[in-house]
Amino acid sequence: MDLQSLIAVARGERPADLVIRGGHVVNVLTGEVYPADVAIVDDRIAAVGAGYKGLAVIDATGRLVMPGFLDGHVHVESSMCTPSQFAQAVVPHGTTSVIIDAHEIANVCGVPGLAFMLDDAKGLPLDVYLMLPSCVPASPFESAKTILDSKDLGPLLAEPQVLGMGEMMNFPGVLQQDPEVMAKLGFANLLVDGHAPDLTGKDLNAYVAAGISSDHECRTVEEAREKLRLGVHVMIREGSVARNLVDLLGAVSPISQERCMFVTDDRHADDLVTHGHIDHAVRKAIAHGMDPVLAVKLATINCARYFQLERVGAIAPGWQADVVIADGFERLRIETVLKRGRVVAREGRPLFEASGEAPATVRDTVRIAPLTDDAFRVPGPAGLSAVRARVIGVVPDQCWSHSLERDLPVQDGDLQPDPAQDIAKIAVVERHHATGNVGVGFVEGFGIQSGAIASTVAHDAHNLVVMGTNDRDMRAAVEALVASQGGLCAVKDGQVVELLPLPIGGIMSDQPMARVAELVEALQARTRAALGIRVEHPYMTLAFLALSVIPELKLTDRGYVDVHRFEVVPVLA
Amino acid sequence: MDLQSLIAVARGERPADLVIRGGHVVNVLTGEVYPADVAIVDDRIAAVGAGYKGLAVIDATGRLVMPGFLDGHVHVESSMCTPSQFAQAVVPHGTTSVIIDAHEIANVCGVPGLAFMLDDAKGLPLDVYLMLPSCVPASPFESAKTILDSKDLGPLLAEPQVLGMGEMMNFPGVLQQDPEVMAKLGFANLLVDGHAPDLTGKDLNAYVAAGISSDHECRTVEEAREKLRLGVHVMIREGSVARNLVDLLGAVSPISQERCMFVTDDRHADDLVTHGHIDHAVRKAIAHGMDPVLAVKLATINCARYFQLERVGAIAPGWQADVVIADGFERLRIETVLKRGRVVAREGRPLFEASGEAPATVRDTVRIAPLTDDAFRVPGPAGLSAVRARVIGVVPDQCWSHSLERDLPVQDGDLQPDPAQDIAKIAVVERHHATGNVGVGFVEGFGIQSGAIASTVAHDAHNLVVMGTNDRDMRAAVEALVASQGGLCAVKDGQVVELLPLPIGGIMSDQPMARVAELVEALQARTRAALGIRVEHPYMTLAFLALSVIPELKLTDRGYVDVHRFEVVPVLA
Repeated sequence: MDLQSLIAVARGERPADLVIRGGHVVNVLTGEVYPADVAIVDDRIAAVGAGYKGLAVIDATGRLVMPGFLDGHVHVESSMCTPSQFAQAVVPHGTTSVIIDAHEIANVCGVPGLAFMLDDAKGLPLDVYLMLPSCVPASPFESAKTILDSKDLGPLLAEPQVLGMGEMMNFPGVLQQDPEVMAKLGFANLLVDGHAPDLTGKDLNAYVAAGISSDHECRTVEEAREKLRLGVHVMIREGSVARNLVDLLGAVSPISQERCMFVTDDRHADDLVTHGHIDHAVRKAIAHGMDPVLAVKLATINCARYFQLERVGAIAPGWQADVVIADGFERLRIETVLKRGRVVAREGRPLFEASGEAPATVRDTVRIAPLTDDAFRVPGPAGLSAVRARVIGVVPDQCWSHSLERDLPVQDGDLQPDPAQDIAKIAVVERHHATGNVGVGFVEGFGIQSGAIASTVAHDAHNLVVMGTNDRDMRAAVEALVASQGGLCAVKDGQVVELLPLPIGGIMSDQPMARVAELVEALQARTRAALGIRVEHPYMTLAFLALSVIPELKLTDRGYVDVHRFEVVPVLA
Repeated sequence: MDLQSLIAVARGERPADLVIRGGHVVNVLTGEVYPADVAIVDDRIAAVGAGYKGLAVIDATGRLVMPGFLDGHVHVESSMCTPSQFAQAVVPHGTTSVIIDAHEIANVCGVPGLAFMLDDAKGLPLDVYLMLPSCVPASPFESAKTILDSKDLGPLLAEPQVLGMGEMMNFPGVLQQDPEVMAKLGFANLLVDGHAPDLTGKDLNAYVAAGISSDHECRTVEEAREKLRLGVHVMIREGSVARNLVDLLGAVSPISQERCMFVTDDRHADDLVTHGHIDHAVRKAIAHGMDPVLAVKLATINCARYFQLERVGAIAPGWQADVVIADGFERLRIETVLKRGRVVAREGRPLFEASGEAPATVRDTVRIAPLTDDAFRVPGPAGLSAVRARVIGVVPDQCWSHSLERDLPVQDGDLQPDPAQDIAKIAVVERHHATGNVGVGFVEGFGIQSGAIASTVAHDAHNLVVMGTNDRDMRAAVEALVASQGGLCAVKDGQVVELLPLPIGGIMSDQPMARVAELVEALQARTRAALGIRVEHPYMTLAFLALSVIPELKLTDRGYVDVHRFEVVPVLA
């Protein structure tokens, strides 16, 4: 865009490429809504006012004209879709920029995984910016494909789409001044996202003093207020599982609002397709009493400012022409979306194609050593018929768990699952380097009656997690996912009864998001029915049981991890 | 500052270098005031909270603890003091950072003048950032020492203290897409300050679309609102002459406040010494009803954010330890000032030294061709005793003027000043390259009875301006300023009766600011008395009569300039 053209159009010396006429502009710079036309040249807004002529005109009479939405923190992989399929789904909902932290694919594929996410996003009418995954693996107890250290990450900071360092989940490492964490934080002028659930007082001061600028883990007004006071940008999360928006609205004060924004973190395909993306957060905030322009502000310029995206997130001269036209604040139906001055979605439909095939670097990622017959055995002490053991207590549809102790039956020298107590067996099989590592434990609360389910989505290292009532079905489930090179599956009586392939890194489909949403929905329902599982989303719940940084008791390929003690613990209590 | 130390102190693992204890923190991030201690390590704030131990302690019981103030747009030269003397005066008033646009010295000394301003500021407990003068000379009608074009300015953008391009006064050049103006605006990711009095509608849209981000020329709420709507940061000016603060408070809405800040633009030594600097603006805003924390916010973080000064302008962990301790919001007496963690002023006194001598590059700058006897003659048409002529109408103490027409007497073939009409003669003598250029005209309204006054402060080219009742005294005044190599002087009956030397560029003293304030005050009073002048500040008023970009009629060394028509016009009407 040359300045001369912008100036000439703004002065009315020549027509704009496009004029959005007759609408009410939602001005997030002043908090106002008022009638004004918007004149656009190429990818920029040239002027906001009356009396502009355009080579093309969009009639926005009776409509709201607002800036395109930004999601400041999202793991695209949680939708199980590729960035380009993600874009097809969210752009029609008004999202025009996302800041992704692709730590899921990074755990599976390392730097080439990050490159895939950016490559796949190229040419899309969605700006995809990357915060570099700061914690791959998430903990020393998880076997990711690779370790991304400061030497790997440093050179990537020069990439134009890279905005900084992603969520620093390793807050113990920050507080203990771990040298490698210090090296990651020490890059000059670095923007670093935070992840600090429940951190408070002096430890929170220390975490913030280290240069970490945001947090998306607040669950209460008090937690958000303490962080806002210390200068932390609070990312108000409205994901599929973690839904903090309503609880946090009370923390958004007239001044502190400047450092608040909406994010989704993890949002599943069905929620994105059915309820929307950042538009959903805006709608919900308004429904709960937030000033509508303020709600739009938290979805636009507040995010852009935090990430120092210049002239993005408002309707003003010289700003990037990312524009959403909606019916009104109540329904907030997104009718038309412009990205860099081009109409890219209308009436909920994308007007662009998804990218092509995923490259070899992110395919064929499930590599396990042949399973021995006793891979899932848990030997018990000789001579006892029952023994006290650690058991993971499931919290349905949440990423945390309880650490329980239960008496488990011993048979043929091995600890056994116990249907009477709703206790199944669970295993995590290393799948990146075929090391043969298998961690085995027990889990209570799925309600599973028979068979097994398995997943190569298993946060954050995405090893293969399998859970079932018997070793044979568990083994068949593992073999099915090796054959499909990733996915989710259910096995009963040795037969695969359900299988959703996730060929990209074992965590993403290559299908459109609406299709993925249908498939996942059907998969969960049929799996519940076939195996008698009570938990609403068994695969997602299972996927988080391997995440060794969220309390209390988790399982990795090295065995149980007591997250509070931050150490590996044996099965026997 | 190493991260480890910050973290260790914030966690309470070891004592801070300094703790400010018992005060109430003014938190511009949330709009709150509450009791909290502030722990400092080296140049950074490590923590804000309770229970910190320090190697040193400042007792702030009953006091407010707030961030150091920033002035987002100031011409230091207007104080007639050097940056280091300026710092000695303003740091005790709580100013810890200034963004200067040194276009006055740039007109006199070019790039070496800018280098002097930055060099002189080195080592001071005041961060001095530079916006590059975008309009040297201010117009094609002014003969500055040099022309600073995009090729001169471009390389300077890489300097760490340089934040962008200073006020783009040449708005006609922007609107007409002048190639050199486009080149100046075209540097990548450039922050450009604006100067757009009365610009509105499509022309304002065009000026903003060109990438200009601020304006300090608003005089009414309506003007400020229109600019804020378009994304312009409004610099609320409270200078010595232009005092817009009270008039603009109504434009500061709950959302638009984010893009408002206080600046001084031009503030004289006596005002700085007597009333203060940015603290004065805060005090005045509070007195006129602004929320006190909001007033501090406009003086601190709002400015820092606009200029992308990271972690400056608030009291929070990891932020630069620029801290002001004051008695309360009512008097806002600044008791202690910390810059980067060091106490640098107490009870109104600086605890640091000014810099040394100014270098040769900014001395001996008054170079004029020998004046001929008829240098100030204005030949009239033959045979008439009076003739219609253009006359500058003085607006006392303002930078604008009226364009008048008056009948002037003709004697010995030349137009004459006319005491009966309060009309004196005025001349501008080129003084940078001894070209011999002299522009001569007439001026009404000083009330001068006899003698002449002269000044090498003459915006913006700072040629030598002289005004008087007769050519002889005018010439003596010019010669006095050549002898002193710059300054302000008054001559009566051929004798110098007053002289204030300004040896640095002919526009700055090398004396402390309090001394300069006294000298200027005395000079103006004695000059008024000696020559019978009615205008309160005759030298300042005179200095603006050469500024060819502020309406209506001005005089440069090329002659009269009709500013509205933007062309040179003859004396005869």
